[in-house]
Amino acid sequence: MQKLVHGLIQTNSTKIVLIVLDGLGGLPVNGKTELETADTPTMDALAQSGACGLHLPVACGITPGSGPGHLSLFGYNPLEHQIGRGILEALGLGMDVRRTDIALRCNYGTIEQGIIKDRRAGRIPTDQSRKITERLKTAITKIDDAEIHFAPGMEHRFAVLMRFPEPLVPGADSINDTDPQKEGKAPLEAAAGTSAAERVARVARKFVSKVAEVLKGEEKANYILLRGFSVMPHLLSFKEAYGLNAVAIATYPMYGGLAKLVGMTTPAVSGGVQEEIDYLRANYDKYDFFFLHVKKVDSYGEDGDFDGKRRRIEEFDALLPQIVSLNPDVLIITGDHSTPALMKGHSWHPVPIILKSPYVLGGLCKGFSERECTKGELGIFPTVNLMSLALANAGRLKKFGA
Amino acid sequence: MQKLVHGLIQTNSTKIVLIVLDGLGGLPVNGKTELETADTPTMDALAQSGACGLHLPVACGITPGSGPGHLSLFGYNPLEHQIGRGILEALGLGMDVRRTDIALRCNYGTIEQGIIKDRRAGRIPTDQSRKITERLKTAITKIDDAEIHFAPGMEHRFAVLMRFPEPLVPGADSINDTDPQKEGKAPLEAAAGTSAAERVARVARKFVSKVAEVLKGEEKANYILLRGFSVMPHLLSFKEAYGLNAVAIATYPMYGGLAKLVGMTTPAVSGGVQEEIDYLRANYDKYDFFFLHVKKVDSYGEDGDFDGKRRRIEEFDALLPQIVSLNPDVLIITGDHSTPALMKGHSWHPVPIILKSPYVLGGLCKGFSERECTKGELGIFPTVNLMSLALANAGRLKKFGA
Repeated sequence: MQKLVHGLIQTNSTKIVLIVLDGLGGLPVNGKTELETADTPTMDALAQSGACGLHLPVACGITPGSGPGHLSLFGYNPLEHQIGRGILEALGLGMDVRRTDIALRCNYGTIEQGIIKDRRAGRIPTDQSRKITERLKTAITKIDDAEIHFAPGMEHRFAVLMRFPEPLVPGADSINDTDPQKEGKAPLEAAAGTSAAERVARVARKFVSKVAEVLKGEEKANYILLRGFSVMPHLLSFKEAYGLNAVAIATYPMYGGLAKLVGMTTPAVSGGVQEEIDYLRANYDKYDFFFLHVKKVDSYGEDGDFDGKRRRIEEFDALLPQIVSLNPDVLIITGDHSTPALMKGHSWHPVPIILKSPYVLGGLCKGFSERECTKGELGIFPTVNLMSLALANAGRLKKFGA
Repeated sequence: MQKLVHGLIQTNSTKIVLIVLDGLGGLPVNGKTELETADTPTMDALAQSGACGLHLPVACGITPGSGPGHLSLFGYNPLEHQIGRGILEALGLGMDVRRTDIALRCNYGTIEQGIIKDRRAGRIPTDQSRKITERLKTAITKIDDAEIHFAPGMEHRFAVLMRFPEPLVPGADSINDTDPQKEGKAPLEAAAGTSAAERVARVARKFVSKVAEVLKGEEKANYILLRGFSVMPHLLSFKEAYGLNAVAIATYPMYGGLAKLVGMTTPAVSGGVQEEIDYLRANYDKYDFFFLHVKKVDSYGEDGDFDGKRRRIEEFDALLPQIVSLNPDVLIITGDHSTPALMKGHSWHPVPIILKSPYVLGGLCKGFSERECTKGELGIFPTVNLMSLALANAGRLKKFGA
């Protein structure tokens, strides 16, 4: 699909705004979903005049993580392009991940006489864990020719990048986790699964020894377990794939990180949705494509807080006129997956979407909701097809064939 | 798809019930379809609260046979996994087909001086044909190292299994039909298309000679024509693919046979739908997945008996509360294909479906029918995706990606 689209790209001065309300889709509680319960006059009006439907992030019945959910929205098949756990962790902690890097999820653990007594170092408090990570950061900066970068996380978790002098070849991340998965066992040694990974595995083994040396006086966090060795996936950038100058406006690092994987500009934006909109408005002349991410809708869904999720949707709707008034050529409002408060987590349900452009039928839906969107002109379609639809509506795709 | 699902399986104690009303979908006669005409209060209530839609067994415009229709429902791509005609015939006649077997559809024919005079032996009556098959069964039990098993069929038709001592390798069934397709020609000799088939072809040639010897006194059925040489397809079992202990409750041998191909337990159940439901209820604790097959809906459709099909649907609906009251985690009611009485045969039309679980929107359809299902939240989807949807609704699939 992306290859087909790539061959038809033409550029113009249109603007596309993609707003992702994270985890937007929901399920009924007392007969109505979060979106159905929410008072959303602006989105309802857009749904009445725009094109609506539902999109399937990965496949029927498959619940997507945030990585696959966003890659799909960006037009990259999430089954072809899988993002390693280390990369996602590092992106989530705001690290500047590059093509020269191996990314790792790390745990502090407790070891005694070569045996792992606690895989989570007693879930040490985050402030203690941060201090220990600071010590490591000072003590270990380079191993062989690899720079070592640390990012502190919550409790016993943190992320590490091993930055090599040149981009890594495929297979360089083929290294087993050192976490034995059970207490009472010895940690595993980092071993290369391919010859391309040998150099990385050597650095990893030295890294584990050095950490153990630095932490040997610690009561609980006296060892490190490595998981999710991974390199950046090789993805065409938005510029290469679609000819778009794209910017990601997101306050949570993970989402900017995912956007960076596809070459979007990822400015630091702090605050809430109003600050994100302020950034969008202030920089509206600079880009063709705006990805604006609203995190809190998902967070309340994950907590099973139906009413909290409803309120976050309403708050967004109240701010939305500030974007609508810019009159972008294509305005899309949707989610990356469903997070029904009823299920307290991501789910497989298709995600409602509004696409507003001058080139839609409209008039099929009374408002914006999961059920109204089943009546829409877009039907139920694979999320990965959204970008071609957006580009078409923006006049950015030529005719296929004569 | 099945590979993706396989990697995400988690087990729990949920129950999934899949009810297949064979040939359920229909077309209007005097403005209404069989399902629309039928009085079905229980299915209508389920359609109102459950998720509805239509599924496409093979592809747009493609009319499926029973084999592809069921494989699709079970989550196996019917274009990748084709079931040989010999296998289907043997399963339909209730034979215990194994991986060591070559299955064949056979016809009695009339031969004179080496020329086929009648390819169907004058369509001899079934009772005569059965007696002749019994004679063959006594006379021919083994050829080389292959056991020969017979199953009598209707009129001039029957099935044969050649059972070898060990499982057959791919290509072992690459042997031409011996039926010349036209009267007035000599029968063809069974010839191997690959070296793997040579041993089987040798047995087949000896088999034809032996049969001719035994039947040489017969007036009409004095020869045998062989068609549809085939081996069991290699399919992952339901246990392997989905982690499900599955049982097939079917009174017609073909459907139990199809279920056996995917490793379901296939108890002998005789009687009608009530006896099938009795079996389901009595064995509800023993399995995770229940495939319950209702044949008669299709049979009346094939006969072009609109009213008979309607009545079979109503009879099923009247019994359905006995299953609903078990409150399975996921209850699915659908067909394997459409059989409109108007067309007196299978058709390509997508098949209406209800999926009931706690995790659906519901409220979109007024009742259960082809037309109401077009308004449902499931849309029109490939049948092969049904299993992932069922597993998701049963909480049996993990998240894809982080």
